[in-house]
Amino acid sequence: MPAQHTINSNRLQHRIQTLADIGRKGDGGVYRMALSPADLEARAWLGNEITTAGLELRTDPAANISACWKPELPTRVLSGSHLDSVPGAGHLDGALGVLAALECVERIKELDIPLKHGLEAIAFTDEEGRFGGMLGSQALAGQLYPGVILAARDLNGVTLTDAMAAAGFDAQQMPLAERDRKTLHAFVELHIEQGPVLDSMNCPIGLVQAITGLFKWEITLEGESNHAGTTPMNMRRDALQGVVDFASQLQRVLDEYGTCHSRATIGKLQVFPGAANVVPGKAVFTLEVRDTDAEVMKQLGDAFQRTLFAVARKHDLVKNFVILSELPPAPCSEWVVETVRQQAEALGLAYHAMPSGAAHDCQTISSVTHAGMIFVPSKGGKSHSPHEWTAFKDIEAGTNLLLNTLIKLAS
Amino acid sequence: MPAQHTINSNRLQHRIQTLADIGRKGDGGVYRMALSPADLEARAWLGNEITTAGLELRTDPAANISACWKPELPTRVLSGSHLDSVPGAGHLDGALGVLAALECVERIKELDIPLKHGLEAIAFTDEEGRFGGMLGSQALAGQLYPGVILAARDLNGVTLTDAMAAAGFDAQQMPLAERDRKTLHAFVELHIEQGPVLDSMNCPIGLVQAITGLFKWEITLEGESNHAGTTPMNMRRDALQGVVDFASQLQRVLDEYGTCHSRATIGKLQVFPGAANVVPGKAVFTLEVRDTDAEVMKQLGDAFQRTLFAVARKHDLVKNFVILSELPPAPCSEWVVETVRQQAEALGLAYHAMPSGAAHDCQTISSVTHAGMIFVPSKGGKSHSPHEWTAFKDIEAGTNLLLNTLIKLAS
Repeated sequence: MPAQHTINSNRLQHRIQTLADIGRKGDGGVYRMALSPADLEARAWLGNEITTAGLELRTDPAANISACWKPELPTRVLSGSHLDSVPGAGHLDGALGVLAALECVERIKELDIPLKHGLEAIAFTDEEGRFGGMLGSQALAGQLYPGVILAARDLNGVTLTDAMAAAGFDAQQMPLAERDRKTLHAFVELHIEQGPVLDSMNCPIGLVQAITGLFKWEITLEGESNHAGTTPMNMRRDALQGVVDFASQLQRVLDEYGTCHSRATIGKLQVFPGAANVVPGKAVFTLEVRDTDAEVMKQLGDAFQRTLFAVARKHDLVKNFVILSELPPAPCSEWVVETVRQQAEALGLAYHAMPSGAAHDCQTISSVTHAGMIFVPSKGGKSHSPHEWTAFKDIEAGTNLLLNTLIKLAS
Repeated sequence: MPAQHTINSNRLQHRIQTLADIGRKGDGGVYRMALSPADLEARAWLGNEITTAGLELRTDPAANISACWKPELPTRVLSGSHLDSVPGAGHLDGALGVLAALECVERIKELDIPLKHGLEAIAFTDEEGRFGGMLGSQALAGQLYPGVILAARDLNGVTLTDAMAAAGFDAQQMPLAERDRKTLHAFVELHIEQGPVLDSMNCPIGLVQAITGLFKWEITLEGESNHAGTTPMNMRRDALQGVVDFASQLQRVLDEYGTCHSRATIGKLQVFPGAANVVPGKAVFTLEVRDTDAEVMKQLGDAFQRTLFAVARKHDLVKNFVILSELPPAPCSEWVVETVRQQAEALGLAYHAMPSGAAHDCQTISSVTHAGMIFVPSKGGKSHSPHEWTAFKDIEAGTNLLLNTLIKLAS
């Protein structure tokens, strides 16, 4: 077995620290909303790093930024993530995946490793969803349509068209970022786990098997608002008690129809009229369910519907549910996963096979090429928070794994 | 058995309709906030009705308005309720009790029935709680203290002192409305049930045995907010699941420690941060428990505490609860209840023995004299709503019962 290669840790660490200061807010958190001044500053800085590294800087019509090595080769291996962030974000979500990819490509160039496939470190536009989320990776995968682009606006009413124009792009040209699939050989995204599993296991590497799909429903139960003192318990049509009955069965439904990767969450619940002395006549809540297997998700959806219908009947409530979103699960490429696994073994890194519970650009890219993900631990599972943290030794281990994986995939 | 007496139904009906138009809003509901222009208009109208009826109009320092018959007698029987209303109220809550009492006293005067005790129809100030609720009956019962009066202000910051001054009263004099208990012989309040029991039984009369006490807690459960996709079910500290576990045990606790009169309600619940894709880290909710027996209420309170503590431990949540209010149950006078029952029998009226689940002025007055209540049905249990309704035949039956009860108590 050949010796494993290693990254330039100091360079990576310096870049992570530098990027973390772009969009840093008073609370210690980072906010680089897509196409905001902070995001544009980060993009300009990244472009400069790419050219300084002697890599070819490319920007596509979707404003994705790439550092290319040997772009003259007919196919290429991609790696990357996103620069934009949620409000009050940590400094690693997305940024780590971009900078680790850049470090790996630069390192491979320095080591002058012979390649059969070109390499491209990429920063995707608007992963976090100012205008819907994953716009850049969707454009690359041919999933971004003119109608969606025209309609897209942020929470303040700013249109995607205007925001792209301010950054020097024509939003209507975004679909032209679609790549010819024949040019794509593989994609690997390094990301922080954003969950507690690896940290709780003290394991440096998550070997992502699949990215979970999800469905999100808004459920309304309606009964009757009544005086809490004058209405006997058995004459109530208490909408909240309907929710309670439903919510108390989440785990049962997961136990019966789910897998160890299944999640069900009621994150939002409003009770009306919402007075201590009034039996709630109406409750509106969200149900969000995730799994890595499309058939399991269908079973879970059916089971939750049955549960909802039974609860409504039992409590004499009127039920209604609206599907807010549905996203199919995306299995990772077995070839990529196995390559990552072999390189982890070669590097002597402990790893844990797991799903990604969160959505990532990799989910989109997996529809057009062989794709996989590497996770590094998030301290205490925290992310989308200034408390987001990963020990640098884990970042280093993950990036070394990415380096050797990319070499293997591109050789 | 002597013949039973009857009221002047037309007069009562006309007065109910006239009062219903004072404070009538565009939605069909009535709003006579205590000491508001609508309330003052209703008070002026009532005063005029009293003097026109040839009864003695008295107003005490708490702004309670009375129609007195034979006030020269050393003791008296009182009957009444309140003129003020909640926003969007019906036309009967409180108003019926005042007008029925006035009709009965006027009728007894007309019939020139010999009495051992004087009669007084009374309209209490601020039952509904602009400044805390039951101010007039509390003042009469000697339960209104200068510190409370000074501190009292409504939701808009208007002080009780200013509102009383605008109505021509000195709020600091309100405690002087306290009656010498020796002058009080009995009190009876006619009120709509504000619940569905009598209507569902098609029964015209509720024979109130006791007015339920209540305790109201605000409970906070705190866990940890986490990403709904990346946090496995068994690594969550989901505050809402704690609430669900607690709320699903309300009926069990009532079954084990309560009576058929017990009620437990979670009417208000807020979940934080309240996003579909975030495991709730915090939930704040109210628990309101009622029963007619103080010892049962203590048992229920202890049991709900144990349940809360167990749920918090099980879900690894931090618990906190604040007692928002406590009101002891008020048993009605056996003598008054039995008198009402005998008169109902004499009138051939079906009746149902029941508690009052709502609080009423009678609750306060019961601390200083023999007190009882008569309920008439509320259509569909609706009250505090423009849909509040009682068939006039039931109002007539209830008022005839009140008339004969007052005659019996005062003879």
